[in-house]
Amino acid sequence: MIDRLPYRLQLNESPLLRDLEEDEVKSLFKRMEHLCFESDRTILAQGVEEKGLWLIGEGCCEVVRGNQSGTKERILAMLGPGTVFGEMSFFQQAAHSATVRSVTPVSVHKLTQQGFTDLLADNGRAAGKILTNLVRVQSDRLNMMDQWVCELMDRNQTENGATHTLNEWHQFRSKLYSEWNFY
Amino acid sequence: MIDRLPYRLQLNESPLLRDLEEDEVKSLFKRMEHLCFESDRTILAQGVEEKGLWLIGEGCCEVVRGNQSGTKERILAMLGPGTVFGEMSFFQQAAHSATVRSVTPVSVHKLTQQGFTDLLADNGRAAGKILTNLVRVQSDRLNMMDQWVCELMDRNQTENGATHTLNEWHQFRSKLYSEWNFY
Repeated sequence: MIDRLPYRLQLNESPLLRDLEEDEVKSLFKRMEHLCFESDRTILAQGVEEKGLWLIGEGCCEVVRGNQSGTKERILAMLGPGTVFGEMSFFQQAAHSATVRSVTPVSVHKLTQQGFTDLLADNGRAAGKILTNLVRVQSDRLNMMDQWVCELMDRNQTENGATHTLNEWHQFRSKLYSEWNFY
Repeated sequence: MIDRLPYRLQLNESPLLRDLEEDEVKSLFKRMEHLCFESDRTILAQGVEEKGLWLIGEGCCEVVRGNQSGTKERILAMLGPGTVFGEMSFFQQAAHSATVRSVTPVSVHKLTQQGFTDLLADNGRAAGKILTNLVRVQSDRLNMMDQWVCELMDRNQTENGATHTLNEWHQFRSKLYSEWNFY
């Protein structure tokens, strides 16, 4: 089954796999679980602590967040092939802050913490590159958020368009958490 | 010289070295440059692209940011032994956004990108743990900033205390960039 996975596509397109050689991607994929979902299935549930890095192979997912009573959902982002999710909670003691659900039939590749530990022992170079890509995206996100809030603060000193600011923030946030390449 | 470095102190206290075994810390230190500065020396200059992870061994430094004309400086944070700086620019194409200057005589241990690449080849496990610590702190910072801005947005819908908000933001930011342990 592993040999039929579209290595080359993901090698070129996923920011998680940036700088990885083909044999390093193979090492990674051997450590992953390969899952398929019909459309409208919950892959990762808000409020649940399940640590993993999920890489979308085919299909699309939506990221949604419910309100406290669980009655109303807001769509935060749409994720396509090559996109990663779960990285915000992978190294933390934290429940997932949103639900990821399939919109079409999807195939996803999941790296558990044990899988990651095994990869680090087995192919430290591949694990190092993946971690570097994770640090890079978190640093980029943080810098972007920092800049955004700085601009907001400057603006708030001269005017007060609270509703406009709020909409802008929701748009920014959706982009921040669904993209990995900011430049 | 390396044998006289206070491994054990930093092993216990620096968030960069969390989970590293003593022999892994030794591998890291062999790849670092060990520098000493008198007080009031610039260790890392705002606007300069010099990639490195700096770990303070002894002494204190201040993080300052100049305005555009370079005439007025604002102190963003004070850093003590075991603190890391430079990590925001280590994996990015970006100049340092602030200057780090010694307040007392300091000893610092600097890991260059080449040093890091060598460590990854030489001791992938140690490099993996350091990267994991870096991802974790960036994720924590991002989550914290996210929460902070969310609360700000909620508040802005009902009231508008712009000056108060601005002071709060400066305090938050100082804490966010100088600490590694948020919980």
